[in-house]
Amino acid sequence: MLLLRHCRCLTRVGLLKTQRVQLLQGAALPVAVCSSHRGHKSGQYQRSHGPNWRHALAGLLAGTGAVLAYGLHHSQTEQAATTIVQPIAPASSLPIYTQDEVTKHRSVEEGVWVTYKGSVYDITEFVSMHPGGDKILLAAGGALEPFWALYAVHSQDHVLEILSEYKVGELSAEDRRKQQSVKSTDPYSTDPERHPALRINSLKPFNAEPPAEILSDNYITPSAIFFKRNHLPVPQVDPKSYRLQVEGVPGGAPLSLSLEELKTRFPKHTVTATLQCAGNRRSEMNKVKQVKGLNWGIAAISNATWSGARLKDVLLAAGYMPEVVRQTSHVQFEGLDSDVTGTTYGASIPLNKAVSEEGDVLLAYQMNGEDLPADHGYPVRVVVPGTVGARNVKWLGKIIVSEEESSSHWQQNDYKGFSPATDWDTVDFKSAPAIQELPIQSAITQPAEGAVVERSAEEVTVKGYAWSGGGREVVRVDVSLDGGRTWQVAQLQSSEKGQVPAPSPPPGRAWAWKLWELTAPLPPAAQELEIVCKAVDNSYNMQPDSVAPIWNLRGVLSNAWHRVKVTVKEDEEEQKLL
Amino acid sequence: MLLLRHCRCLTRVGLLKTQRVQLLQGAALPVAVCSSHRGHKSGQYQRSHGPNWRHALAGLLAGTGAVLAYGLHHSQTEQAATTIVQPIAPASSLPIYTQDEVTKHRSVEEGVWVTYKGSVYDITEFVSMHPGGDKILLAAGGALEPFWALYAVHSQDHVLEILSEYKVGELSAEDRRKQQSVKSTDPYSTDPERHPALRINSLKPFNAEPPAEILSDNYITPSAIFFKRNHLPVPQVDPKSYRLQVEGVPGGAPLSLSLEELKTRFPKHTVTATLQCAGNRRSEMNKVKQVKGLNWGIAAISNATWSGARLKDVLLAAGYMPEVVRQTSHVQFEGLDSDVTGTTYGASIPLNKAVSEEGDVLLAYQMNGEDLPADHGYPVRVVVPGTVGARNVKWLGKIIVSEEESSSHWQQNDYKGFSPATDWDTVDFKSAPAIQELPIQSAITQPAEGAVVERSAEEVTVKGYAWSGGGREVVRVDVSLDGGRTWQVAQLQSSEKGQVPAPSPPPGRAWAWKLWELTAPLPPAAQELEIVCKAVDNSYNMQPDSVAPIWNLRGVLSNAWHRVKVTVKEDEEEQKLL
Repeated sequence: MLLLRHCRCLTRVGLLKTQRVQLLQGAALPVAVCSSHRGHKSGQYQRSHGPNWRHALAGLLAGTGAVLAYGLHHSQTEQAATTIVQPIAPASSLPIYTQDEVTKHRSVEEGVWVTYKGSVYDITEFVSMHPGGDKILLAAGGALEPFWALYAVHSQDHVLEILSEYKVGELSAEDRRKQQSVKSTDPYSTDPERHPALRINSLKPFNAEPPAEILSDNYITPSAIFFKRNHLPVPQVDPKSYRLQVEGVPGGAPLSLSLEELKTRFPKHTVTATLQCAGNRRSEMNKVKQVKGLNWGIAAISNATWSGARLKDVLLAAGYMPEVVRQTSHVQFEGLDSDVTGTTYGASIPLNKAVSEEGDVLLAYQMNGEDLPADHGYPVRVVVPGTVGARNVKWLGKIIVSEEESSSHWQQNDYKGFSPATDWDTVDFKSAPAIQELPIQSAITQPAEGAVVERSAEEVTVKGYAWSGGGREVVRVDVSLDGGRTWQVAQLQSSEKGQVPAPSPPPGRAWAWKLWELTAPLPPAAQELEIVCKAVDNSYNMQPDSVAPIWNLRGVLSNAWHRVKVTVKEDEEEQKLL
Repeated sequence: MLLLRHCRCLTRVGLLKTQRVQLLQGAALPVAVCSSHRGHKSGQYQRSHGPNWRHALAGLLAGTGAVLAYGLHHSQTEQAATTIVQPIAPASSLPIYTQDEVTKHRSVEEGVWVTYKGSVYDITEFVSMHPGGDKILLAAGGALEPFWALYAVHSQDHVLEILSEYKVGELSAEDRRKQQSVKSTDPYSTDPERHPALRINSLKPFNAEPPAEILSDNYITPSAIFFKRNHLPVPQVDPKSYRLQVEGVPGGAPLSLSLEELKTRFPKHTVTATLQCAGNRRSEMNKVKQVKGLNWGIAAISNATWSGARLKDVLLAAGYMPEVVRQTSHVQFEGLDSDVTGTTYGASIPLNKAVSEEGDVLLAYQMNGEDLPADHGYPVRVVVPGTVGARNVKWLGKIIVSEEESSSHWQQNDYKGFSPATDWDTVDFKSAPAIQELPIQSAITQPAEGAVVERSAEEVTVKGYAWSGGGREVVRVDVSLDGGRTWQVAQLQSSEKGQVPAPSPPPGRAWAWKLWELTAPLPPAAQELEIVCKAVDNSYNMQPDSVAPIWNLRGVLSNAWHRVKVTVKEDEEEQKLL
């Protein structure tokens, strides 16, 4: 349970599973009573209820389920997990299926099966009616619970009623128990459970990103699908014995803080900040020429609200005096995650960023209003807004003020940018600065590469994210439907939809991304659209046009225009076929 | 003389002219005595002296005359102007030419004539021997003095001896006097004299840039050829009655400072900072589609050393208290330059830049160690390092702390960036932020477009500048000889050549450009080279590949890769001709 206590967000998913099993084991009778309306035929039910629920859901979802703030979704999910005790069908009346059998049904052609609270559903015919569109297929062959936890709108009685129409069987008792019994001597065996929607780039250490099409559904990324970038096994940290060491402050004295002291001795400061891996969009560089690194798509970037003590305040408590310390110094961080030799993860940032009133560097103990999840650094991590993810050290153990940058591999011989002419035979890591602030970035999350747009729709909606490092605010996103020949300006979103727009951040402190959207008429003659986006920040930095000239051997800093090709399906063809 | 007193750098040129006339009028006899060696035939003299002086000059010049620091050049020029009283030939022995006649001789084909101290020289046959190369043609048809003032190495007796060999006549007395007698009621009539090397984009108001090929000869741009960007006539400011007004500081009181008070009440602070016009390289956008604005080439950018009081210190003296003023406020500047309605030039910057210890914003009264020249804001201008030229208000009259940005045309309806889709019918100036920090920039100053490279040279040398706004340091310049397909990394220069390399600036305070240079083998088969450069700053921002996608109706922020095409002249062809 230590693992689960470290990660409340994931704990919820775990509890859902646990409760599900308990409820199903003991609730056969109430199920039969509560499901008394089951005598309706599916067809009848759909006809009589269809228009109503579709209308209600569409209004709530505004198409994709992104309308609800994360807080609302959380509280509703919690409620759903503890109060909805309305099982759907008696366990005895339908066949038993194994998880393997369910997993085979992951497409409209093979049938789309899902499980929920131990029951198996064939939702094939519902897929085209799902108000959230094709995203429902992410759950195909697996459990609905983790996806419904992301979209609180599902936690309503009438949604369960709809689902009940599609029930085809029960999941085997063995498969229900299976996920609770994983134990081994593998150093990664104590890694936390992860959300099944994540696309895994590496299991050990764990590196994964959310599917692009759900990334831009939430301005604040739910912690469970926030991209994970671990360099080592997740350390097991006991919050009671945890100490944060602070060393090297000239004229000061070493400081050791308990978690409680960090929380109570310093003002709690909250910042909404986007983190991005240096390798985000590396896969596009791999298409030019193979690079070294995880093959990240476009979603190694996420946005969260972080709370904790300011690093500046902690350094002041350790005796930091601006007049004593040279501005060219550095602040090093050491993680509690280590390899078999005991070498810990490490990184550093320039002192001026660390101590600036406007730098907003946090020793964060909360993410999205809850304790940090295990994957995100429980109990304390550094959050360096505007700076590459690699410097936002997780499971923070030690802070060292120094004349030198961190001597760690990741600071010295990794996470640096080079010319496309530099290869592994010629590279001199000392010749390039460690990546700190990141450049302007944007990408298209919808439609996906290869998607089909119906001509009859007459227009196409394009969505994505845009962000820049160093607190530079995104001021414009240009979108092209013709490969970059002509451009249109997208609408920017800087808070959850439906909420009052956030006021502009103070200059130099725009730490959070902007989501963006453009709905434009389909170009009349085009059979294929090459959709392109490029963003501009308030220093008017722009993205480079193409990947090859910024290619580098490590595949970092991949921020060329993002391009997605989609096909336009002509109505005439359909009519001819009829 | 007020005009000249305001502009010491140009005064020097003026004095040269005045002294020249006086010397020539009264020095006929000593001239004859001192020129007693004139009986040598030119050919003999050249043969006997040629190798020596060529060797000596080449060593001194290192090719282009860029070896000498500006301070050295200044003191030597001063010395030359006051102590070289060795006129070259008796006024009576040669024909008298008018300036018009001299002006007709501006090419090797028509003959290359120049004037120096009232004498006329036909230097056609010397052009190919000039150690500084083709730059000598910049002076063709006009006076040598302003160019020799830029290159102190010329102020030596043996250079005058060489020149004397080419004397062909005297300049008419009327033309000698002509430049001293310009007076009118034109509001621009009191504008200062300018260096003849400047390429004029607009005379009234005066806007001009230096030839690109001399821009990168000096790490610190000599004030006389520093690009000029005036919006209105240059105001005549009496330094004795000058007052700087400071208003609007919440909780403070209006402050009025004399020039003397500004110099003595506040610590003098010196910063080397590059200024760039928002319209630099606009001409490349004009080639895509016509924009509105002056047709700047690549040299609306220059680098100087500025000294003055910190704006922060002056605001503190006016009662500024960080805890009272909102960080989202602005500091407005009003110039003393005004149009016929009395409307002054104005601009503003964010307060956090103005008051930051690391912002280095100056109320400068010196440029390159001397009083500000009239064209650069005498007696006081704002220098906002890292920020677009337009906010560096010259002839500063008033500072206003305000909740609002400057209401001036140039802040509200100019100097903003837009999408390529935005035209003058659809533009909404309120929709874009005023340009402050500028994006990453670089350009090729050598070779020039259309230049010819000899195959026998076996290699080509490419030079240029690179700079980024916001104090972001240029960390790499990539150069391609094949239009961007392959790249090489250039050498960076961050101080005058031959001096000890400057230490890296503190993070976020890299205000000065870097010059760069690459010497690379000529590609074996190429008949034409498309030379391209692109720079990278320490936030790893990079320049966009092409101009069209960043085109905007005002032609600002033109920072695509810079491209220059040169021809490779094959030796085989020459051999066939022999």
